[in-house]
Amino acid sequence: MLNLDAFSLKVKQGQLLLLDQQKLPHKEEWIAIENEAHFIQCVKDLKVRGAPLIGVSAAICLALEQSKKLSSIDEFLAMSERLRRSRPTAVNLMNALDRMNSAAKENFSTNSLLEKAGEIFFEDQELCQRIGKNGLEELKGRKHILTHCNTGSLATVGIGTAIGVLNLLSKQQELHVYVDETRPLLQGARLTSYELEKLKIPFTLLTDSMAAFLMAQSKVDAVLLGADRIATNGDFANKIGTLNLAILCKHFSIPFYVAAPRTTIDFHCLTGAQIPIEQRDAREVLGVHVAEYNLQWARESQVFNPSFDICPAELVTAWIFDDKVYRKAPFDRI
Amino acid sequence: MLNLDAFSLKVKQGQLLLLDQQKLPHKEEWIAIENEAHFIQCVKDLKVRGAPLIGVSAAICLALEQSKKLSSIDEFLAMSERLRRSRPTAVNLMNALDRMNSAAKENFSTNSLLEKAGEIFFEDQELCQRIGKNGLEELKGRKHILTHCNTGSLATVGIGTAIGVLNLLSKQQELHVYVDETRPLLQGARLTSYELEKLKIPFTLLTDSMAAFLMAQSKVDAVLLGADRIATNGDFANKIGTLNLAILCKHFSIPFYVAAPRTTIDFHCLTGAQIPIEQRDAREVLGVHVAEYNLQWARESQVFNPSFDICPAELVTAWIFDDKVYRKAPFDRI
Repeated sequence: MLNLDAFSLKVKQGQLLLLDQQKLPHKEEWIAIENEAHFIQCVKDLKVRGAPLIGVSAAICLALEQSKKLSSIDEFLAMSERLRRSRPTAVNLMNALDRMNSAAKENFSTNSLLEKAGEIFFEDQELCQRIGKNGLEELKGRKHILTHCNTGSLATVGIGTAIGVLNLLSKQQELHVYVDETRPLLQGARLTSYELEKLKIPFTLLTDSMAAFLMAQSKVDAVLLGADRIATNGDFANKIGTLNLAILCKHFSIPFYVAAPRTTIDFHCLTGAQIPIEQRDAREVLGVHVAEYNLQWARESQVFNPSFDICPAELVTAWIFDDKVYRKAPFDRI
Repeated sequence: MLNLDAFSLKVKQGQLLLLDQQKLPHKEEWIAIENEAHFIQCVKDLKVRGAPLIGVSAAICLALEQSKKLSSIDEFLAMSERLRRSRPTAVNLMNALDRMNSAAKENFSTNSLLEKAGEIFFEDQELCQRIGKNGLEELKGRKHILTHCNTGSLATVGIGTAIGVLNLLSKQQELHVYVDETRPLLQGARLTSYELEKLKIPFTLLTDSMAAFLMAQSKVDAVLLGADRIATNGDFANKIGTLNLAILCKHFSIPFYVAAPRTTIDFHCLTGAQIPIEQRDAREVLGVHVAEYNLQWARESQVFNPSFDICPAELVTAWIFDDKVYRKAPFDRI
């Protein structure tokens, strides 16, 4: 029997529970996942989000569904394929499911699949710790760090990637975090600020358009954020607004760091141009459609709404991975 | 008797009427200004906004108040001073009130003051036309133009500054406008999109964090926006987010234009460092507090909320004024 307990994911008596991230920060509600279709809907609705968390929870969902249904390996692989398609940009999801598929092909038993899912869970916690330690070395002494989107315990099952680094850093030195609100879905304003408050790390919230002026006043010592998918040449996809910050950092000579597990590297993508980018619903840009909020402040019109942008490798100071800090790409395959 | 009729300002039978810009784009409501305290509150609440419109309407408000109250010149000058303090960054406001004060000192009669206010009104319309024509020459052939905030008939009593240029351009050639939503007060999403729709100019709305990725895809031929105050060295203050766009333009080698009446130049400010920047209410960043919307999606926290940023002259391709297009500062005093 799998029993797991993280900040935003729990497994209790064969039931996967996910913290509903659309209800945060005002309400803490847990969703009991009924089946894989329900899980996929939660991913699409961003109730569960963050590339590592999606990967871990998809693996767990798959193992638990198998344990309930005891289907054939073909049905299992078809279910795995449906899960994979829920978020085309997230390479962690693909990796986690590939590992589940391999495990199934090797030993198609409920126990072996549950064990593999548990392994993926604990590995993510361990990866976060390692990223945190590597980032700590790299960022030591930088007191004012700006971050974008959400990369902590709401995006992983551990301390997080970029926020994991901030977490460890705050225990050793004075730290003040600037949080980009991250329109259109406001992961910074709703989630990162919620996590930083829980971690008792002082922070200042700003709209995404304000970072340049903050930097012009020498108030930012570094930008540190996560990645959804990294090409082997070092280009990476991350929440829309990332490229913007990278260009500002170059202009102001501020170091720009990416923190991610090595599993975020997609060795099938040679450059960022090969990373697919989803266009999301127009309503997100016409107003706010997140949490319990459903309002539209603009009139109906055409919008541009890519969920991610691609940041070229030459704008990155260093990639903070779990194995080590890379100052240039391409990355070793290990 | 003063009778004036513009898109967002009317004077009828001695009554100043202003279109309530906080109610747009869903409701078109006019506010009957009761006295100068009421006007100042409307400025603070952004019900009336846009540097030129504030200047023109303050002059009219002053003249109409004087015609109702028939106060002494000292009382008149004190009222003028109160109006001036409603928006410290707006140089147009200072200029308009200086002209009213001079007119009052020269000939302290209701008729002369109403005449001067009317002159300021018609001059603004004429300035917009001249800026539009100069901008037209400069931007001819550029089909995809990105703009920020609102600079049209809701910000002036004429065709506008940056939007005025787009207005004239759209009558001569194919044009597609990209509209930054302009957090936190959403002037782009609410007002510019409303105006462009009325002008039948095709446009695409985006969040402020998306411009970089749009530019990376070669979808932007120029950025064109307004200014709230311009220093003699060419540095200028404009809606927060302007500096961000200027840096992106430099990175992508995209021309970056400022369109404004020459009256926006403050010859007392030698550089941008001398321009005061207001910090606005934290609630604007914690959620959306505009129009009928009052919601807070973030928990209470510290925020950074400057209404303007300062863009240095070296990032500007050209300043499009009513007299001519300047390619470098300092500007002639004429």
